Amino acid sequence: MKQKQNKSALHEQKGISSKEITDSSAISKIQDKRKKQPNTQHLVDDILKGNITALSRAITLVESKNPKHSETANTIIKACLPHANNSTRIGITGVPGVGKSTFIEAFGKHLTSLGKKVAVLAVDPSSSLTKGSILGDKTRMEDLVKDVNAFIRPSASGDSLGGVARKTRETIILCEAAGFDTIIIETVGVGQSETTVHSMVDFFLLLKLAGAGDELQGIKRGIIEMADAIVINKADGDNVKRAKLAKVEFNRALHLYPEKISHWQPKVNLCSALHNEGIVDVWKMICNYNTLTKNNGFFEQNRTLQNKFWLLQTIEDNLKSDFFNQPKIKKELQKQIQLIEDGKTTPFAAAEDLLNLL
Amino acid sequence: MKQKQNKSALHEQKGISSKEITDSSAISKIQDKRKKQPNTQHLVDDILKGNITALSRAITLVESKNPKHSETANTIIKACLPHANNSTRIGITGVPGVGKSTFIEAFGKHLTSLGKKVAVLAVDPSSSLTKGSILGDKTRMEDLVKDVNAFIRPSASGDSLGGVARKTRETIILCEAAGFDTIIIETVGVGQSETTVHSMVDFFLLLKLAGAGDELQGIKRGIIEMADAIVINKADGDNVKRAKLAKVEFNRALHLYPEKISHWQPKVNLCSALHNEGIVDVWKMICNYNTLTKNNGFFEQNRTLQNKFWLLQTIEDNLKSDFFNQPKIKKELQKQIQLIEDGKTTPFAAAEDLLNLL
Repeated sequence: MKQKQNKSALHEQKGISSKEITDSSAISKIQDKRKKQPNTQHLVDDILKGNITALSRAITLVESKNPKHSETANTIIKACLPHANNSTRIGITGVPGVGKSTFIEAFGKHLTSLGKKVAVLAVDPSSSLTKGSILGDKTRMEDLVKDVNAFIRPSASGDSLGGVARKTRETIILCEAAGFDTIIIETVGVGQSETTVHSMVDFFLLLKLAGAGDELQGIKRGIIEMADAIVINKADGDNVKRAKLAKVEFNRALHLYPEKISHWQPKVNLCSALHNEGIVDVWKMICNYNTLTKNNGFFEQNRTLQNKFWLLQTIEDNLKSDFFNQPKIKKELQKQIQLIEDGKTTPFAAAEDLLNLL
Repeated sequence: MKQKQNKSALHEQKGISSKEITDSSAISKIQDKRKKQPNTQHLVDDILKGNITALSRAITLVESKNPKHSETANTIIKACLPHANNSTRIGITGVPGVGKSTFIEAFGKHLTSLGKKVAVLAVDPSSSLTKGSILGDKTRMEDLVKDVNAFIRPSASGDSLGGVARKTRETIILCEAAGFDTIIIETVGVGQSETTVHSMVDFFLLLKLAGAGDELQGIKRGIIEMADAIVINKADGDNVKRAKLAKVEFNRALHLYPEKISHWQPKVNLCSALHNEGIVDVWKMICNYNTLTKNNGFFEQNRTLQNKFWLLQTIEDNLKSDFFNQPKIKKELQKQIQLIEDGKTTPFAAAEDLLNLL
């Protein structure tokens, strides 16, 4: 009897009523809780201590397609949330060949030399096809990868940019909880990947080469409009003169845009990542940006807006895929498209008919 | 008995079973059908005869917010569909002051002089606020408005661009059924209105002024990318030299873009709508475009793609508004946003919680 009372008290501690243990399924529930909770809590504790192995394991759970893993990942993320958010998130984009790896290595080494902890992530929607085109090959950042204060993680693969984005956003939280105070997110100009990265960072940096002649491309695709800084890399040797000219041109282009809500005037910098020149100035610039936007409230406001954006975006994506993946909708959609092509209905009437199926 | 049989035969003709007339509600149903069907059929017949009063009445039904009117409008549109689609749909955009009205008047008069029937519509999402900023004042096109072969209709007002777009697309069908073989849709560069018009026309024309210095704006906003022609207006008097220079610049800008799927190389033309110069060439160019794209199949392919676009767009808009307008979602959304702001949940977990409410 005494033993039973003790047992029951133990269960109450775990939030299980004594009524529940009258059947055997309740007992297995307890065993489940025993198995799962300590592990998850353990992982969270280790992440908060800055344990890289624990961090990597948690990221693997975030990236897993197994629903059980996703559930565990959600628990870990929620436990990490109060310890997240305290970093500078920097997005870096540029065409292949611009020297992104060399830049991130030089930049990252400078940051760790200042005592910072740097995590480098990537958003690369093409990586699931090409098996990791960026950051996949860690040897590209030989020095940084050996640095105990740096953590490099290749792009999560995924069926959709939305999926990759979610995994990256959640990985940011885990890295921040593990004590990384500077998060660098690398991307390439594939489809919407730059817009996606822009909506998850505080500072968006566009790496350029002098005289590449793709200035208009950047304007056309809205990348220059998003940039907080344009950094012209490989400004060394014979390239210096051209780089200086490019700086004038980009400055002129930047002045065509209305003032940003952040009140930050985007800057154009020169650097040579290979010769480690101009790297210090890039970090100083980002510090100035942080000071300005933390003082005028934009820094926090922007993160709140980003959260709302991802909330609405996730809902919209799900509403669409839930609707269009239903077998009866798939079937009727084909039928309605045929009716439209035969001139027997309009797109609007067809949409109504499809929506009325639900 | 004989009378009853006759009555019943009459009802069968109208698609009503003899069983239905045993109660009085069925009789009032018949009366409703008597009242409604002949009117609707009458209206359709008159539209097909090119009767402008009937066309205007049908457009008013399309624009009405009354659900009964919408139902009638849908019936009319479906009846008109087999007689639609046989026109050239031309989108015209340009900033205020570029001379859109003068151009459309000169262009429209030229078309009617060739025996064409021209309908001029507008997509102006701001008109519901400003009570019709474009085409609202018909006196702007004094000559064209008097032309029996021209039909001018101001922008439908609406709460959303999507709503205005739907009404305009349906009005196009009615105009085509009424025998209008050239549909001009005017718009201004407000928000997404140009993209919207682009996705409902065959040919997209951008009106410009020489030396306005907004070339980059057009590139930035993706308008130049959409244009099949850039027509530089007011190329007269002292302006001719500048207009010719602008032509060279725009031609250079156009060559930055990859070849269009239509295989049409966008052209830059000069004109002076005020002095009726260059108008003939614009129409010749559009005829060349029609010949090219009808031969290579793009013309039809593009209309099919546009129909699919509007089908999917309408469904997506409805899924979103249906979801977010539910009182319990509205309430829970505020709660989840607060949880995100308090760092207690992530946007993705919040989205899941909201979606699970359904």
